[in-house]
Amino acid sequence: MSTAAAGTPPVTVDTLNPKVLKCEYAVRGEIVTHAQNLQQELQKNPDSLPFDEILYCNIGNPQSLGQQPVTYFREVLSLCDHPALLDKSETHALYSSDAIERAWQILDKIPGRATGAYSHSQGIKGLRDEIAAGIAARDGFHASGDNIFLTDGASPAVHMMMQLLIRSEKDGILCPIPQYPLYSASIALHGGSLVPYFLDEETGWGLEVDELKKQLEEARSKGITVRALVVINPGNPTGQVLAEENQKKIVEFCKNEGLVLLADEVYQENIYVEDKQFHSFKKIARTLGYTDDDLPLVSFQSVSKGYYGECGKRGGYMEVTGFSPEVREQIYKVASVNLCSNVSGQILASLVMNPPKAGDESFESYMEERDGILSSLARRAKALEEAFNSLEGITCNKAEGAMYLFPRLHLPQKAIGAAQAAGTAPDAYYAKRLLEATGIVVVPGSGFGQVPGTWHIRCTILPQEDKIPAIISRFKEFHEKFMDEFRD
Amino acid sequence: MSTAAAGTPPVTVDTLNPKVLKCEYAVRGEIVTHAQNLQQELQKNPDSLPFDEILYCNIGNPQSLGQQPVTYFREVLSLCDHPALLDKSETHALYSSDAIERAWQILDKIPGRATGAYSHSQGIKGLRDEIAAGIAARDGFHASGDNIFLTDGASPAVHMMMQLLIRSEKDGILCPIPQYPLYSASIALHGGSLVPYFLDEETGWGLEVDELKKQLEEARSKGITVRALVVINPGNPTGQVLAEENQKKIVEFCKNEGLVLLADEVYQENIYVEDKQFHSFKKIARTLGYTDDDLPLVSFQSVSKGYYGECGKRGGYMEVTGFSPEVREQIYKVASVNLCSNVSGQILASLVMNPPKAGDESFESYMEERDGILSSLARRAKALEEAFNSLEGITCNKAEGAMYLFPRLHLPQKAIGAAQAAGTAPDAYYAKRLLEATGIVVVPGSGFGQVPGTWHIRCTILPQEDKIPAIISRFKEFHEKFMDEFRD
Ligand SMILES: Cc1ncc(COP(=O)(O)O)c(C=O)c1O
Ligand SMILES: Cc1ncc(COP(=O)(O)O)c(C=O)c1O
Repeated sequence: MSTAAAGTPPVTVDTLNPKVLKCEYAVRGEIVTHAQNLQQELQKNPDSLPFDEILYCNIGNPQSLGQQPVTYFREVLSLCDHPALLDKSETHALYSSDAIERAWQILDKIPGRATGAYSHSQGIKGLRDEIAAGIAARDGFHASGDNIFLTDGASPAVHMMMQLLIRSEKDGILCPIPQYPLYSASIALHGGSLVPYFLDEETGWGLEVDELKKQLEEARSKGITVRALVVINPGNPTGQVLAEENQKKIVEFCKNEGLVLLADEVYQENIYVEDKQFHSFKKIARTLGYTDDDLPLVSFQSVSKGYYGECGKRGGYMEVTGFSPEVREQIYKVASVNLCSNVSGQILASLVMNPPKAGDESFESYMEERDGILSSLARRAKALEEAFNSLEGITCNKAEGAMYLFPRLHLPQKAIGAAQAAGTAPDAYYAKRLLEATGIVVVPGSGFGQVPGTWHIRCTILPQEDKIPAIISRFKEFHEKFMDEFRD
Repeated sequence: MSTAAAGTPPVTVDTLNPKVLKCEYAVRGEIVTHAQNLQQELQKNPDSLPFDEILYCNIGNPQSLGQQPVTYFREVLSLCDHPALLDKSETHALYSSDAIERAWQILDKIPGRATGAYSHSQGIKGLRDEIAAGIAARDGFHASGDNIFLTDGASPAVHMMMQLLIRSEKDGILCPIPQYPLYSASIALHGGSLVPYFLDEETGWGLEVDELKKQLEEARSKGITVRALVVINPGNPTGQVLAEENQKKIVEFCKNEGLVLLADEVYQENIYVEDKQFHSFKKIARTLGYTDDDLPLVSFQSVSKGYYGECGKRGGYMEVTGFSPEVREQIYKVASVNLCSNVSGQILASLVMNPPKAGDESFESYMEERDGILSSLARRAKALEEAFNSLEGITCNKAEGAMYLFPRLHLPQKAIGAAQAAGTAPDAYYAKRLLEATGIVVVPGSGFGQVPGTWHIRCTILPQEDKIPAIISRFKEFHEKFMDEFRD
């Protein structure tokens, strides 16, 4: 036996990879653990708390709050999971005929019709081609299946790009503040530096190129090599939808500064205002005349968001353009180490990018489900926004898109003091008190980043519409009491 | 605009993360790309090559070669994907009644029956409990759903552990040579050092604790902190099944040296010889009297292997025992950054760990499918092994388990010279010639590691049984010609 002295130190938090320790992910952080404990308490003893259910407004997880999946998508998935059904006449009693036809088409795209086989590491070629066709139809510019990497949701795709680009803490990634904390977590896990740029709350979370330049130069002056710019559009947690002119400036900035543009476009279907429209950054770049040779650009998309909200399916893709074949090969290699993404998720990604068309049997019911969800989300966003703005000491920008509101809390000094005494940040203190009084789970703004000295919470717009009035009144009641307790 | 001189260097292979560049993954490497190109050639011009199909024996991907999924599993998945079916009477015409019942049970385990929601980041609690019950039934020792982390296949689970344990190249992981290259790839990606220990080909790929000690001490003398031992049992690419006595010594070794035991047990159902049985390392540790407090131990399992072979579903789990709550929390945090694994994969993992039981409607047909696959795999393993051993200059250990043979090529000096002249390793040269002559894709031993100066190929036992005779004769013919060309 080796001498004990030479033995390996035990695995404790102190001997873990410090990058892991540094990583934070508030969307599933302390407040959520607290909520889960309260939920267990409620189950054991339903009268023990001043509310009878926990309302998870902490995470963009529509189906967990009762949103129903789109029937056509699930029909196709169900058939692809059990292809033996396709030959049986009884199947026509249970599935729409266009879903059956689509399942056949999909199976024909899968080598050997083997839905249980590892696929190509980028995903099944025929499905990637279908996604590319959907992108081309959306943008009016060519897209190629060879540029699509199908992934288990957008999250692994983001990690893959960070893994590729980050060499050390001297490599920086420009990220919005506030940001969806996948980005800060991924940058921390890969040992890079997050270079923050601040969205301007005053102008509806505006993204100013001057701010980008300022932060880029400041980072460079510290010896940081800034490699990429992350833009989340529509924004999470902020809900803003960028204007086309703004997007053009961002593309020019990346082009001039040699930055990879990492465009998180997972909320591309979630737009709730008449005067805004989604434009992919690829479309903007091509409109400006930039080709594949001019600008490295990655667009992330996911089946978790949109009107589909299929978070549990873990489907998504990144469209990768503007890299050399050698770099592409490295991306492929990293993808291949995990073999492939789940095939059901791949199929679903191809469905959301190429849904039923006018004339298809399912088209009308599909459109009804889709529009029902999207218009309800728009109404919920508006109702919650108005409620927040009606409260003393809360201001809230409009959710133009995505699934969140990010109201600012103008907290009384006394509340800030109480938080300090409790050893927490003021917004975390507020969120905890809110949870304990109402069962509503929101995420403190500190989980996303915010201008120092400002405090926010992020609240999803996802509870079912019939619950919104009760939520608003519970929230109001809590807030008024809170203000009465702490008003300076 | 910033000065161009200060601009970011373009993204080229030279500016990528060097850990990514260092990572290699031969299972989907050069030879496979070559095969894919040949396949395209065949499609365009079927008579252009001396064979009419490419036979992918490079990867453990059963369904890609015609293995059919287990009906019951797919029925349940299909129902869970489209729960609306469960209320319809027509459904009974298409699905077995126990599959319908099981789908109901599964839905009841999912909060809100929402198969499209992000789950708990470890996976759905009820499914984890079911997996734990399956482990307990297998081992005869308690298992807890709290220790299960469901993942998109075993690969991400392995990455997660490497990410946690590796701080720098001064941290080492003991890995078998030859090994499944996920391990070398993951260690490279996370910037650690692979500390090799050699399996002994002479004794049927024996794992000797003396060899472990020797390599551990050598690594320590170089200043490497060895943190974990990887054992793959049944082995890939080597196919050996460890004897119980041997496993006990390995556990003692880890205990005494303070190493985390990373037990890759994805082939636990794939055993083809009468005199060997699968014992999980957790069972061995508990048999020795070690509890959760004595030994950090992680067991990896996957839906990709066994008789199910559901690679495309990306389901799997790790059972994590022997870590402190603080460390566990860090594992949970890393899992939570990716939100959760795909729910269909989670369901499938619960099914393979708790399949139909005697008395269930599907039990007999299920057992027939299962035994049909496993006994056929055993026959295929034997036929291929005998064929390899019948050839001049090839010796091949028995595949006791897993899905591979790893024959040794005793190549003539002249062949080695020809490989050198072609600028490739001799086994890669052989594999390329084999592919070009027969369409059979195997992986050169260098992709897995081997004792320097020895040469191997890895060949799966997965082509359908009726194809095996033709494969053997194609192989024989090629090999004899190759030897005639190069015999010294
Ligand atoms: C902006 C943004 N990007 C990416 C993701 C990741 O989603 P998924 O991994 O489920 O595709 C989310 C999830 O909430 C998100 O809000
Ligand atoms: C030994 C071993 N471990 C892990 C894996 C990973 O499999 P998956 O990620 O499909 O679960 C494989 C796949 O071939 C394997 O052979």
